[in-house]
Amino acid sequence: MTTTPVPRRTGRPGRPGYDLDSLLAVAVKVFNDKGYDGTSMDVLADRLGLSKSSIYHHVSGKQELLELALNRALNALFAATVEEDATQGRAIERLEFLVRRSVDILVAELPYVTLLLRVRGNSAVERKALVRRREFDEVVSGLVAEAMDEGDLRPDADPTLVARLLFGTVNSIIEWYKPRLASSSAELGDALVMMAFDGLRVDR
Amino acid sequence: MTTTPVPRRTGRPGRPGYDLDSLLAVAVKVFNDKGYDGTSMDVLADRLGLSKSSIYHHVSGKQELLELALNRALNALFAATVEEDATQGRAIERLEFLVRRSVDILVAELPYVTLLLRVRGNSAVERKALVRRREFDEVVSGLVAEAMDEGDLRPDADPTLVARLLFGTVNSIIEWYKPRLASSSAELGDALVMMAFDGLRVDR
Repeated sequence: MTTTPVPRRTGRPGRPGYDLDSLLAVAVKVFNDKGYDGTSMDVLADRLGLSKSSIYHHVSGKQELLELALNRALNALFAATVEEDATQGRAIERLEFLVRRSVDILVAELPYVTLLLRVRGNSAVERKALVRRREFDEVVSGLVAEAMDEGDLRPDADPTLVARLLFGTVNSIIEWYKPRLASSSAELGDALVMMAFDGLRVDR
Repeated sequence: MTTTPVPRRTGRPGRPGYDLDSLLAVAVKVFNDKGYDGTSMDVLADRLGLSKSSIYHHVSGKQELLELALNRALNALFAATVEEDATQGRAIERLEFLVRRSVDILVAELPYVTLLLRVRGNSAVERKALVRRREFDEVVSGLVAEAMDEGDLRPDADPTLVARLLFGTVNSIIEWYKPRLASSSAELGDALVMMAFDGLRVDR
């Protein structure tokens, strides 16, 4: 799957050719810039340099584009929850793995995750995405609770609150991360795990 | 200053009377629901149950409402940076104080801080708010760097990155905090400081 927003040219000169992936990449950029509700098919067609009927050749409408984009982010996050390192070993290690993988996914799929995190539930597609986000959050709070039970995480806070603060930190990266300027996702993951798991304070 | 969105009645029956604070509270709610750009003066007048000319009695337009709302959040945050506990003592203690006070402000002024954190710089008023946000962020990264120099914070990460992750955690609270259901701001502050300063992991 490619994320390149630059349309590939087809045989027909002067007319950009898109496959579904590259069309989706442009659509997601427009949704993030103008808001999904504020983006009409006319605006999309204009930004793509396509007629609306050319867009309908790929998808049934902007709702399908939204669903494809949200699923791309959600599928990546759920795929992480079933990786070997997320399902074997102590809960604290599975949790740390999931935090690091989520940072990787956020960086790799930044526009898709950004769109997902701004969803407010204004349509059936958005509400379905919110249900899946809550399922993911439950996986996280389950791991936090398990790691507390195993004695590896401090038990002095509510697991749901801890899970929210932990993934709040992960998710807040979308607000300032710039792919070209900032740290690699591994450096980001290291700094985040250092802060949240081991604490910023030097032990004396 | 009151945040009550319920308009006070004046002598004239059947017509809601607003002072500037209660008018602002309703406007900020509409801005957060529909987006500032998506809110017209007609929509505002409709939600307030006022004529547009009654709104113009209080403010010059929606841009002034935005500026008042953003300044309310920013003034509260900057007021915290000059409190005694933020200016005296070791940098780590000043930083911890500023984190806790920011959580308090976020909870007390939730709609105003939410509006501030969604500003993208689409107008002069928004760009001015972004400049002040950056000034606040520089106060925070200055404290982080100072606390690293004083040997109280782990020196193994870039101070700007640490400041972003730390206040990213604070700011992410707006995404899920519900005034009536959730913890008090003191409980939130305790959990956040526990995670970010002392770490979730149990030392063995």
